[in-house]
Amino acid sequence: MRQASAVHKSKLYEQVAERLGDAIAAGTLRAGDRLPSVRQLSASERVSVSTVLQAYLHLESLGIIETRPQSGHYVRRRERPLPAEPQVSQPSATAAPVSVSALVARVYRAASDPRIIPLGAAVPSPALLPTRRLNRELSLLARESGEVAIDYDMPPGCLVMRQQVARRSLDWGCPLAPEDFVMTCGASEAVHLSLFAVARRGDTVAIESPAYYGTLQAIEAQGLRALEIPSHPRHGMELDALEDALKKRKVAAVLVVPSFSNPLGSCMPEENRQRLVEMLAARGIPLIEDDIYGDLHFGPRRPRPAKAHDKEGLVLLCGSFSKTLAPGYRVGWVAPGRFREKVELLKFAQTVATPTLPQLAITAFLRDGGYDRHLRSLRRQLSSQVQRMVEAIGEHFPEGTRVTRPEGGPLVWVELPRKVDSLVLHSRALEAGISIAPGPIFSAQRRYGNFIRLNCGFPWSPRLEGALATLGSLARSLA
Amino acid sequence: MRQASAVHKSKLYEQVAERLGDAIAAGTLRAGDRLPSVRQLSASERVSVSTVLQAYLHLESLGIIETRPQSGHYVRRRERPLPAEPQVSQPSATAAPVSVSALVARVYRAASDPRIIPLGAAVPSPALLPTRRLNRELSLLARESGEVAIDYDMPPGCLVMRQQVARRSLDWGCPLAPEDFVMTCGASEAVHLSLFAVARRGDTVAIESPAYYGTLQAIEAQGLRALEIPSHPRHGMELDALEDALKKRKVAAVLVVPSFSNPLGSCMPEENRQRLVEMLAARGIPLIEDDIYGDLHFGPRRPRPAKAHDKEGLVLLCGSFSKTLAPGYRVGWVAPGRFREKVELLKFAQTVATPTLPQLAITAFLRDGGYDRHLRSLRRQLSSQVQRMVEAIGEHFPEGTRVTRPEGGPLVWVELPRKVDSLVLHSRALEAGISIAPGPIFSAQRRYGNFIRLNCGFPWSPRLEGALATLGSLARSLA
Repeated sequence: MRQASAVHKSKLYEQVAERLGDAIAAGTLRAGDRLPSVRQLSASERVSVSTVLQAYLHLESLGIIETRPQSGHYVRRRERPLPAEPQVSQPSATAAPVSVSALVARVYRAASDPRIIPLGAAVPSPALLPTRRLNRELSLLARESGEVAIDYDMPPGCLVMRQQVARRSLDWGCPLAPEDFVMTCGASEAVHLSLFAVARRGDTVAIESPAYYGTLQAIEAQGLRALEIPSHPRHGMELDALEDALKKRKVAAVLVVPSFSNPLGSCMPEENRQRLVEMLAARGIPLIEDDIYGDLHFGPRRPRPAKAHDKEGLVLLCGSFSKTLAPGYRVGWVAPGRFREKVELLKFAQTVATPTLPQLAITAFLRDGGYDRHLRSLRRQLSSQVQRMVEAIGEHFPEGTRVTRPEGGPLVWVELPRKVDSLVLHSRALEAGISIAPGPIFSAQRRYGNFIRLNCGFPWSPRLEGALATLGSLARSLA
Repeated sequence: MRQASAVHKSKLYEQVAERLGDAIAAGTLRAGDRLPSVRQLSASERVSVSTVLQAYLHLESLGIIETRPQSGHYVRRRERPLPAEPQVSQPSATAAPVSVSALVARVYRAASDPRIIPLGAAVPSPALLPTRRLNRELSLLARESGEVAIDYDMPPGCLVMRQQVARRSLDWGCPLAPEDFVMTCGASEAVHLSLFAVARRGDTVAIESPAYYGTLQAIEAQGLRALEIPSHPRHGMELDALEDALKKRKVAAVLVVPSFSNPLGSCMPEENRQRLVEMLAARGIPLIEDDIYGDLHFGPRRPRPAKAHDKEGLVLLCGSFSKTLAPGYRVGWVAPGRFREKVELLKFAQTVATPTLPQLAITAFLRDGGYDRHLRSLRRQLSSQVQRMVEAIGEHFPEGTRVTRPEGGPLVWVELPRKVDSLVLHSRALEAGISIAPGPIFSAQRRYGNFIRLNCGFPWSPRLEGALATLGSLARSLA
């Protein structure tokens, strides 16, 4: 059997960061203290300067230290200690028909109501996106492309777009060719088509617990059963638990969000990804990999998709530009492996084509360069917003609240004291003009009654701080 | 029981047109003859001048007469008599699991290959669409809308867009409110969502025979069974046959294209629409009405959607701008009646949102006026193109070929001599650079082995005439 230590084996810079983190946690280094210079630490740790820089970047992304210009690195000051993290989820081991309801509609509707503070839906603030440049590209293309802009872009979709996505896949560490992709109306359609391609009504699909409510709804719509697998707030789906489950029942497919899952924000370690792919390949079970948040890592390296380990064509990799460039453009993709032909036909039957001009505009944006620079800035922003959110929760929420420490993505998952009913909290918050996502919509079993998911996609502001204070006091009144 | 005459009761102008048509068919009026002046005919028929004008317009749209400027109306000259129409379809009475295959992919892929003459997919020529104006609207909006353009347009979708569609519904004779609509990525998604909302895997859905292959694929994908109902080439689904079928088996939903069905081009008479809606209401069976071609009538009046007779909220009306404005914009809608909430949630789960800017551009186009003018010109073009196609088939195709006489839409359905295998013809035609849609993809039972569907969406040209001559000689070699 595999050793746990091997499964979570960390990189050199992570080890350096961890030792520093321990020193801070132990009080050896205290808030406001200056950290060793990069050169000093490089000498004392016997690692390269770049490893130290990575370690500092990592600690900064976690909000543990901060950089002061022309001065160095310092341990961040905190009002109060941050709340603890939630524990591994314990869903029931039975596969349940999904029933997530009109609550979901309340959450997404609130996202487009400017009077409501949007902590519910996982929406990036358009202020963080290259709105002006993309719209300018689209504007130019609309004038220049003539009939191409108006015509159907039949599946598999725009070749120049697929070429650009294929080029990105080199950076993912998972090189794919343009002909491996089918373009879709966002990652949701990609996941939906993937489910269609690999499962039939009544089949069981193993998912993380908690899991994104849109996916649960897709599972429900297709008449599938969701088998919720315990999931670790940092490492995602527990593979031992999955392996047990696979021994006990027939599973048609596994669906995971290995990179910065929704809502947990967990990131499955590279070794786990490999083990997952191999475990499923041995059984001939398809893996649907939703990689929508993959580009939003806070650490220095983008996690490699599990698809990188796919030798059998059993992994269907789904992604989109909705969380990094333009949600409203509706441009996503799927690399469906051996299910490519089937997925392409299903795409045609479902929505015929993906909108043409938005694909061309994103293609132009990627071609002209600057996507990586944009991503770096977006990641820095999200990392800092997540940190501020975690701190504000520590500040305002009742004693005993736990919150995740995602290393990427725009979301935090909050465990409130057991007495707090998150559905009641959701209603009260909405009355106060704040939208949150209540825990039960993330589970086919309607678990997580005292959890909420909060969106950190918006720049921190006094309005947000106020909303968190209000939420905290509502939660305290229910605790 | 209802009288057949009542079911097919025609309007005054149609009666006038029919009498003239009979006179022409009988040889009383011959090719090149001048028809009576409008005033003369108004006096002799004892009908108003406007009724005569309608009758002439109707005959013109059918290609039977032509107008010569400053001269009057004349019987059109023809090289040879037009082929006969196909007869009522005779599908088997058993519900079949659908299996339409990779043939479909060959048909839609050919549509985007400029080297291939696109008689396969039902694609309007962008040359007939207000390409420049729409792209200009979109270009302006992309510059002006800023973050709105980038952001998710959450279900039910853009309010200003829904207001414009609701305004159009007055012209359909089926007044609906903005809140009755959910915007979708084209009519295909609308139909897909509607099927999801009303049927579950294993359920039977009654459809026309032949039926659009995209719909058959959606039915297949959802694991439903298709029950093909005999359909008349002019009047669409045979309601007596449907009624019989409903007595014999449980049907979860009925799906029809009452206005210019695909591929038949049939138009269900108003009385039949009412009877259909009442028949289903009495049994509580939902009706999915695909109205995608409704605006493309050649006669003077747009057919009213069956939805106009819906008192129970059981009709789900689907439509889009893909056949009239911009296929590549992917803007459609569904008015799902009592299934509205369910459809909206499914829309969220499937593709989250409909692209924002294309909706805004079409909204601006509709608001600025000129849509009706555009439609008039588009209809005239299509009517003439369909007529030219029918004539060319008469000219080039083997003896015994039959072809429909659609009164709207861009499609004709061709019955070839029994010996001609349309799958072989499809392959040979593709080798010759011509794409056609072979009959078997329009039937879950793989019927219509000697039928093909031809797209008349492109302006007539020597290239098209040549393609028809080639097709004809290929068909003759197989007959």
